[in-house]
Amino acid sequence: MIGPLWTKQKSVVVGLMSGTSLDGIDAAIVSIEGSGLAAKAELLHYSSVPYDDGLRERLKELCTIEHSSVDLVCGMNVYLAERFAEAAIEAVRSAGMELDEIDLISSHGQTVWHIPEAAADDPLLVRSTLQLGDLSVLAKRTGRVVVGDFRPGDMAVGGQGAPLAPYGDLILFRHPEKGRLLQNIGGIGNCTALPAAAGPEDVFAFDTGPGNMVIDQTVYLLSGGQMSYDDGGSWAAQGTPDEVLVDQMMEHPYFALKPPKSTGREVFGKAYAEQFVSLARARCLNDADIVATATAFTARTITEGYLRYVFPVCEIDEVIVSGGGAHNAALLAMLQQQLPEQAVITSSVLGFSDDAKEAIIFALLGNDFMHGVANNLPSATGASRPTVMGKLAFP
Amino acid sequence: MIGPLWTKQKSVVVGLMSGTSLDGIDAAIVSIEGSGLAAKAELLHYSSVPYDDGLRERLKELCTIEHSSVDLVCGMNVYLAERFAEAAIEAVRSAGMELDEIDLISSHGQTVWHIPEAAADDPLLVRSTLQLGDLSVLAKRTGRVVVGDFRPGDMAVGGQGAPLAPYGDLILFRHPEKGRLLQNIGGIGNCTALPAAAGPEDVFAFDTGPGNMVIDQTVYLLSGGQMSYDDGGSWAAQGTPDEVLVDQMMEHPYFALKPPKSTGREVFGKAYAEQFVSLARARCLNDADIVATATAFTARTITEGYLRYVFPVCEIDEVIVSGGGAHNAALLAMLQQQLPEQAVITSSVLGFSDDAKEAIIFALLGNDFMHGVANNLPSATGASRPTVMGKLAFP
Repeated sequence: MIGPLWTKQKSVVVGLMSGTSLDGIDAAIVSIEGSGLAAKAELLHYSSVPYDDGLRERLKELCTIEHSSVDLVCGMNVYLAERFAEAAIEAVRSAGMELDEIDLISSHGQTVWHIPEAAADDPLLVRSTLQLGDLSVLAKRTGRVVVGDFRPGDMAVGGQGAPLAPYGDLILFRHPEKGRLLQNIGGIGNCTALPAAAGPEDVFAFDTGPGNMVIDQTVYLLSGGQMSYDDGGSWAAQGTPDEVLVDQMMEHPYFALKPPKSTGREVFGKAYAEQFVSLARARCLNDADIVATATAFTARTITEGYLRYVFPVCEIDEVIVSGGGAHNAALLAMLQQQLPEQAVITSSVLGFSDDAKEAIIFALLGNDFMHGVANNLPSATGASRPTVMGKLAFP
Repeated sequence: MIGPLWTKQKSVVVGLMSGTSLDGIDAAIVSIEGSGLAAKAELLHYSSVPYDDGLRERLKELCTIEHSSVDLVCGMNVYLAERFAEAAIEAVRSAGMELDEIDLISSHGQTVWHIPEAAADDPLLVRSTLQLGDLSVLAKRTGRVVVGDFRPGDMAVGGQGAPLAPYGDLILFRHPEKGRLLQNIGGIGNCTALPAAAGPEDVFAFDTGPGNMVIDQTVYLLSGGQMSYDDGGSWAAQGTPDEVLVDQMMEHPYFALKPPKSTGREVFGKAYAEQFVSLARARCLNDADIVATATAFTARTITEGYLRYVFPVCEIDEVIVSGGGAHNAALLAMLQQQLPEQAVITSSVLGFSDDAKEAIIFALLGNDFMHGVANNLPSATGASRPTVMGKLAFP
């Protein structure tokens, strides 16, 4: 067996994150001291490169059974890795740094499919997850050591491969006296409950449901492809949610599943949004009402998750929102209204930009890999044991 | 940057190979002294686990644009890794060894798609290759460090990601006085020319064309799915090749391409074989003649490759055949007949079983990764530089 791959006490890591919202590539340059739960992270620089519309459409297609095929998976795996390399290089340049100051690039990859539970009707559809963005291509292009593709490692020891962020949330946000709920709103929404003075076994996390995914897809459909998200929640603010329809949508079986649980585009993707818009139109809602309803539904999936699975077991003082959804004022207002006992704030208030948080966390995961330190959190993913997730490629 | 991952002078590595012929999983347990071109390999044990027919059919489907989709790629990546883990564990057991005597597992993975040149009509279809069999799953199941997924690393530095075997052929078979041609006949046929006393720059290699792929698929079609290969070449031996049809088939543009070049199932797969059988039937050939013609075509692709691209530049004394095709007596006889000046022998004569050779070579590649030693051969793949191919996962 081999030991730690490095013994650095301090490293500079570029964390790359591309979420299921298919927004683009977030790059966080992070200075990390130590490893594991004792790690201290400082964000040196954050930048984001959006996917162009053409690529986003191709990715959406690739995330469907009907429009995907093996040749596209093969090509996209390398095509995306080239984009990831460009994003990392651009982040380093815009930080005024040189590539040789970077010890490691740690990449989440782009999730294109996720099978949290084995399918009953096909023995090949085992528990699995597929993140694209080839690590060797990323390493050769940037000249840096690369770690990435973390989720399969957790699934291989019985976890759901998600959510991975709680491990980083614990490192970045645990508080000696306050109970905190970290809510990331990317394509999918996920929350991490950190009771006051939490240890690893106390952390409680799950995907709350769709994050921006249903809102984004609804806006895209209603705008005839002209808009890909509701900027600041301004469209939703002009409408009134249809609470009857929201109640009906909350009957989806995902919300009655007990954590740990995870979901993805294969459940709340394009087909789901199309069905929602049809239902809404059948109820004679106008476009602003439809967007408001999608937003209210998203808020309800989050707060219902808390009411059912968090508040009964753990006292929460603050809800800290990050991800693209932290910029949606309509969504934040609905959350605060439904959570009168908690302060709803965004993670930037605590020193980590709302957008950068996930990328910072993947920098931590890569750093741990190099130290040979287990970087999954069984209490969040359901894994049978802590394990070192990730794969390494040389430049 | 990090240095070598280990400094072992001697390691025991399980090499796993699953070729494009979709036969199954070859496992070679190899004791390796040193690294790079100076490595000395001794085969301790070889075993092979065939894919069951159901899996083989699903894999063939996955290797088509029409019948593949992202969910199947996702599931198969993990499903195959579980099979690879079983094959490795079974090999260790049948060698009378324990898993903790194994320093490393090195896995080629199952190629399901390969794009050697970027497509003109789709910017996503960049140069790329896709090997399935997740390395983390393999590592967690076996409890061993795993290296694998080598080909993307060579493609990322401008190579075709194939053929990789020549690097190992050079280590295992170079001879101070004899010029040797190593011919592997798996699903695809590939040859490596090793001039007498060859160094890395002297090696010359390319995919000759289909190996067993057209023969196997033809036999499968003619037997109504009852047979998946022509055992020992006995069916071909009962027929007479249609040389006119063979000449016509040799007009395929692949054979006029200059090396380095590589090909795969996307060119000579199911659709190609179906077209061939239709043409042959239209020429009123009986079944045995059709199999003989497929076999003669395969032999011609190999010997034409030599005549055009090897013999003009390098003197060859021996042609050493390995892979499943080494068991096809009809094919070997045709090769010997078309190569009157050379001795056509099988690699087992030289101490490495015909079947095990590729798996042994992938053990060498994984060992080099751990030593931080470049393990591609630019003269064979067309890469712009030597590089360390592969990715590593922890148990």
